[in-house]
Amino acid sequence: MDFAYDPTTEELRARLLAFMDEHIYPAEPVFARQLAEATDPWARPPVMEELKSAARAAGLWNLFLPNKLHGAGLTNLQYAPLSEITGWSAALAPEALNCAAPDTGNMELLSEFGTPEQQERWLKPMLDGAVKSAFCMTEPDVASSDATNIATRIERDGDNYVINGRKWWSSGALNPACGLFIVMGKTDPQGPRHKQQSMICVPRDAAGIDVRRGMTVFGNTDGSHGGHAEIVFDNVRVPAENLLGGEGEGFAIAQARLGAGRIHHCMRLIGKAERALKLMCERVLHRSAFGKPLAEQGVIQDWIAESRVRIEQARLLVHKAAWLMDTVGNKGAHAEIQAIKIAVPAMAEWVLDRAIQAHGAAGVSQDTPLAMMWVSARTIRLADGPDEVHKASLARKELKKYR
Amino acid sequence: MDFAYDPTTEELRARLLAFMDEHIYPAEPVFARQLAEATDPWARPPVMEELKSAARAAGLWNLFLPNKLHGAGLTNLQYAPLSEITGWSAALAPEALNCAAPDTGNMELLSEFGTPEQQERWLKPMLDGAVKSAFCMTEPDVASSDATNIATRIERDGDNYVINGRKWWSSGALNPACGLFIVMGKTDPQGPRHKQQSMICVPRDAAGIDVRRGMTVFGNTDGSHGGHAEIVFDNVRVPAENLLGGEGEGFAIAQARLGAGRIHHCMRLIGKAERALKLMCERVLHRSAFGKPLAEQGVIQDWIAESRVRIEQARLLVHKAAWLMDTVGNKGAHAEIQAIKIAVPAMAEWVLDRAIQAHGAAGVSQDTPLAMMWVSARTIRLADGPDEVHKASLARKELKKYR
Amino acid sequence: MDFAYDPTTEELRARLLAFMDEHIYPAEPVFARQLAEATDPWARPPVMEELKSAARAAGLWNLFLPNKLHGAGLTNLQYAPLSEITGWSAALAPEALNCAAPDTGNMELLSEFGTPEQQERWLKPMLDGAVKSAFCMTEPDVASSDATNIATRIERDGDNYVINGRKWWSSGALNPACGLFIVMGKTDPQGPRHKQQSMICVPRDAAGIDVRRGMTVFGNTDGSHGGHAEIVFDNVRVPAENLLGGEGEGFAIAQARLGAGRIHHCMRLIGKAERALKLMCERVLHRSAFGKPLAEQGVIQDWIAESRVRIEQARLLVHKAAWLMDTVGNKGAHAEIQAIKIAVPAMAEWVLDRAIQAHGAAGVSQDTPLAMMWVSARTIRLADGPDEVHKASLARKELKKYR
Amino acid sequence: MDFAYDPTTEELRARLLAFMDEHIYPAEPVFARQLAEATDPWARPPVMEELKSAARAAGLWNLFLPNKLHGAGLTNLQYAPLSEITGWSAALAPEALNCAAPDTGNMELLSEFGTPEQQERWLKPMLDGAVKSAFCMTEPDVASSDATNIATRIERDGDNYVINGRKWWSSGALNPACGLFIVMGKTDPQGPRHKQQSMICVPRDAAGIDVRRGMTVFGNTDGSHGGHAEIVFDNVRVPAENLLGGEGEGFAIAQARLGAGRIHHCMRLIGKAERALKLMCERVLHRSAFGKPLAEQGVIQDWIAESRVRIEQARLLVHKAAWLMDTVGNKGAHAEIQAIKIAVPAMAEWVLDRAIQAHGAAGVSQDTPLAMMWVSARTIRLADGPDEVHKASLARKELKKYR
Repeated sequence: MDFAYDPTTEELRARLLAFMDEHIYPAEPVFARQLAEATDPWARPPVMEELKSAARAAGLWNLFLPNKLHGAGLTNLQYAPLSEITGWSAALAPEALNCAAPDTGNMELLSEFGTPEQQERWLKPMLDGAVKSAFCMTEPDVASSDATNIATRIERDGDNYVINGRKWWSSGALNPACGLFIVMGKTDPQGPRHKQQSMICVPRDAAGIDVRRGMTVFGNTDGSHGGHAEIVFDNVRVPAENLLGGEGEGFAIAQARLGAGRIHHCMRLIGKAERALKLMCERVLHRSAFGKPLAEQGVIQDWIAESRVRIEQARLLVHKAAWLMDTVGNKGAHAEIQAIKIAVPAMAEWVLDRAIQAHGAAGVSQDTPLAMMWVSARTIRLADGPDEVHKASLARKELKKYR
Repeated sequence: MDFAYDPTTEELRARLLAFMDEHIYPAEPVFARQLAEATDPWARPPVMEELKSAARAAGLWNLFLPNKLHGAGLTNLQYAPLSEITGWSAALAPEALNCAAPDTGNMELLSEFGTPEQQERWLKPMLDGAVKSAFCMTEPDVASSDATNIATRIERDGDNYVINGRKWWSSGALNPACGLFIVMGKTDPQGPRHKQQSMICVPRDAAGIDVRRGMTVFGNTDGSHGGHAEIVFDNVRVPAENLLGGEGEGFAIAQARLGAGRIHHCMRLIGKAERALKLMCERVLHRSAFGKPLAEQGVIQDWIAESRVRIEQARLLVHKAAWLMDTVGNKGAHAEIQAIKIAVPAMAEWVLDRAIQAHGAAGVSQDTPLAMMWVSARTIRLADGPDEVHKASLARKELKKYR
Repeated sequence: MDFAYDPTTEELRARLLAFMDEHIYPAEPVFARQLAEATDPWARPPVMEELKSAARAAGLWNLFLPNKLHGAGLTNLQYAPLSEITGWSAALAPEALNCAAPDTGNMELLSEFGTPEQQERWLKPMLDGAVKSAFCMTEPDVASSDATNIATRIERDGDNYVINGRKWWSSGALNPACGLFIVMGKTDPQGPRHKQQSMICVPRDAAGIDVRRGMTVFGNTDGSHGGHAEIVFDNVRVPAENLLGGEGEGFAIAQARLGAGRIHHCMRLIGKAERALKLMCERVLHRSAFGKPLAEQGVIQDWIAESRVRIEQARLLVHKAAWLMDTVGNKGAHAEIQAIKIAVPAMAEWVLDRAIQAHGAAGVSQDTPLAMMWVSARTIRLADGPDEVHKASLARKELKKYR
Repeated sequence: MDFAYDPTTEELRARLLAFMDEHIYPAEPVFARQLAEATDPWARPPVMEELKSAARAAGLWNLFLPNKLHGAGLTNLQYAPLSEITGWSAALAPEALNCAAPDTGNMELLSEFGTPEQQERWLKPMLDGAVKSAFCMTEPDVASSDATNIATRIERDGDNYVINGRKWWSSGALNPACGLFIVMGKTDPQGPRHKQQSMICVPRDAAGIDVRRGMTVFGNTDGSHGGHAEIVFDNVRVPAENLLGGEGEGFAIAQARLGAGRIHHCMRLIGKAERALKLMCERVLHRSAFGKPLAEQGVIQDWIAESRVRIEQARLLVHKAAWLMDTVGNKGAHAEIQAIKIAVPAMAEWVLDRAIQAHGAAGVSQDTPLAMMWVSARTIRLADGPDEVHKASLARKELKKYR
């Protein structure tokens, strides 16, 4: 259980930190301005393509992908501190490095489970950052944290599969560059509970797809990242070879996908919390009220100390989960992945709330990244399974020791 | 300390509850649609004018204004349960009844401190709901919770005053119908700490006013309510008779204004929390996961019970503060107003957070009013003075008992 | 819903406050010394009898008992502020005024449900403060918050009842003056769920009673108040006329008893919290660290303000519950009684925790009453039903509105 | 930063775990019974000497002491999991292994700073477990978290030092086997702030020592461990060679002592929390209410999951602090030692509170170790500096990064 950074990690950290300073942070106001000036809510600020080129040139590309054939080949423990750094500017850095959800998870699936043809057609352009994708799992009508509830049908019809159902929170689907939907549905609704589901690749332009609307998150469309779509699949027909893995393997594939997705979220949230703490410290050093700097107010000091203590603990737990994923696999690390999914978003939300409060009205506004970081931290308490589902599952594991 | 509703209150409550059912709730989706379809971010959904007519016809108009000459003449204790009801649909009902901030506070100022000419020119059209207003107090460069920090200058020059300064969070200023800015600034920067400030009425179209931008609140412009403007006053010149009250009375007038404003916020937050609790209950009764309705999950029940307990306590404290304002005046009720300002937004935020969590992803989206209600509750922990300022002041009062 | 104190209450408050100053507070160190010097762990410090005489002489006696024939005949709303005052010195004042549990609940039962013979034999000496009693309900082997679990048997045998079972947390049973156990058990284990139980009066010296041990509460025996006994009833035989109420009425009688017991606990907890806040204020005004009085530390001020805000809310809710008990009865006030049972001990525990922390090591020691007050507040989160049971029940009530 | 257990640690863990099962847990009821039967409040249950012999025979002795000449020579990281295990039975195991405070800290001081004569006279019998000691630092009249406040005088008088002052919370001083007081006082009250203090060895039987009383902790004397004494030093005269280190080195020595003491507390608290979680799990699996085992109640599951998540994070932070102490020294690990001092007692208190609640009334009683473990966790939030002092200091460190 050695969490020290190895030379590879140290080298990449140094390179990434320099990249953040030289490219990412200066691009933040540019990105914001381009966004504000856009008339199309789903427009992508042009600065992003520049950042992608720069990141690729700097050798900071596809760091998330453990498969050396397709990506950087880093372990989770190596990737953790890098992903954390991208969290400092989560609206720009992850996408700039081609390390943003949901493409990361989709690329992992295609890399691990895709046929050579599927990899050639979809994975390759995604690895290049040219094509974007969405993952269509959650449904409006059922509690999707219980995957056995999924109602979308994927029915075999000769050489095709026919898809019918309604999805929402398909993030990225409204991105004009989105070319692929990976859809989860039931091929065998009567089969064993965890063998009913399959996954299938659906081209964005297939007939029968109706992208109804973008969902908002505390009023925000996340338009620059392709939004969160509600989509109706009405007799959407795709060739049978589009199936990802075999029939009935959808649940297992989803679990594999979610493990990495969850820890990536947590890594970035550590970075968000660190940036919030930095902003809070800078703010209170330079702001006075009632005759002294806020930094000398006891309540503010309490927030700063608590933030540091909470961040340290959360990071260590994330690193332990990463180390376990590397050494005993995602399944062996299941309890720890649940633990970080419970602990880290709540920690980040807490730190962000205090940082916002320390900023006064500026904290809720567009003048700091805090409000948007808060929105994402809060949302991750729900995304990929609400806290309560993870807690109940973790408790059952703990209780099993004493049965 | 009798909190029972008197016959006047009972009658108005019945009328208002019926109005909510007949007019307000049905208008919510209309309002949302008109908002979504608008191209101007500061456009006002047309349904609002219909609601205003209906409210006026129903005798539900200017209920907030204690002065019988100009408004309904209700006590705070009478108004509290009515204001609470409007909180159930805070984006529509308060404005529909001409009871929305910042106009309420501004009308109170004009009603109490305005000259007959000022009342004729500004109060009258505001009482009619024809003209809107903004209150320009907070400044970006200083901790405005400490009013002695205010840097804007109001300087006498012959028969005029000349205003220079920068304000932000001037809510409502971007409303096309906004006709009046009430501006706080210093007429005597060398005077005694609480005698330096004055207030002045500035027509929206005065030369030298530059409305720079709308501030966002967790990404939202609040455009349909006139947004929150950053405004530069550059040698803005108005006649001397525009001064509200006398020179040096600005701080005292602001205090008077804030007392009512704070309790109105708290009344509405009680309503928001009640609606959140209702939505949470309905959701969990009709949603199942892992084999049983969410309503039977212990954690959800805990949230519901805690919500009820917290709402009850908060309402009683608001009613006590209202009763004190009615019997011993705003100054005598100062500790209780601080207490509700501390307790009620935090309570509402807590209830809303749980209601959101119980809704899953729907909870953060546009499909329920919860996310926007959360934003407002969170923001009120900062608006009109952050919690920490009120707590420090309240603690000093408590400590004084034992010195 | 008028919470103002009426003249009777005002007069009694004045008299009680004077009594506290003249008799109770000066007796606290005497009580502590007598306790420390005693060799018998169940000895009763002699000063208590002096206080009882003084209280009776001052007309501050049996204030808790609403029945005018036997007690002071106060309403719950009248008694609430008096009971709160006794909470300031909860180890002395309630017993000094003959208003201490479990005798209060037992006297209420005898007053309301007892036969004239039972009242003559047991109630009369209890009203005089000469005889003490215990209430034997909770059992070690079952979750007693669910009264249908009770396993103790009360079986008719000719003119007698025969009692077999094991009880614990029978508070007061180890008091040498204890003369009566009111025992709850099942007379009809096959009957309808809430008709199986009965209550019976058992003389302390009946054959077959084995008081096994005193339970400790965070290490304390509460010996001066008769401790908390574990008792085995082995074929204990009493005359049939000792039954309290009819067969099968035990559950209903217990409910009646618990309503008043719970609100009395809450009233006193308000008083404990108030005293804790007073002690915290005094401490921090007179203690300096790192160059300034603790009273000027922001974190301490936060505790003081939060304490005041929480106490105010809790008191109002207790008063509302009392008012409801007076106007619509204990059953009509059931939700509010649950609400205070949830809110008030948690509030008091929170305030006490901060007051302890503000005192440093003195706070956990015998040098302030804080540690013992904390123990009682913490314990009441369990006594008379743990929070979780009340919350689940309250949630079901709330959900019922929307079914 | 490798937290894996090395072979030495693994071997000692296995041996210690076996020792706990074979000796410690079976001795718990014996210890409790001997304690209950003792008439002298400061009596030491005889079973302890048996345990000490067994531990020494098992090679589990003085594990805490890093100096190989005198102790086991383990690193902090090696000792951490062993100390954690002793926390499972903190009333017995630490003392049985001669690893209990305050002797551990005192032995460290003597081992590191003692002269050969001091080591021969005091350290040797303490290493044998034959003689006990106390550390006299905290004073009743000043905020001792600020060591510059200390008022006790140590004045040179010829070949002697003369000590005058009042100490309290001198743990262990009432132990009949206590032979040594290490006393902190001022030799140079006019010197630089951190050079005024010195430490001196005072035989327990020196003339002028008056052990006034034992302080209680939530009503408990901790009598079996020598209690917590209030002591008056009235012209206590000892030879000059009793000085520990040089004049003016008292503050620095105290800091050295406190670092290890704090982490030992935290290690044991992890063990306490683990045992509480185990007891909670076992309890809820075997207890039913309202028709199902408590283990199936959602709220209980929430507590269990949260406990696991919090314990994991806390342990990792403790291990990191231990690793830092081993690699960069106590001074370099200062921030992390503060962080665990803030985080771990609060975590343990939280877990213990839920474990208590899950046990119902049994949880506060003598029938589980929970209540006493809670008392110790709560007290450590105050001991060795209250949370607030550590937080303020940690915040200043964080802020320094951005000045």
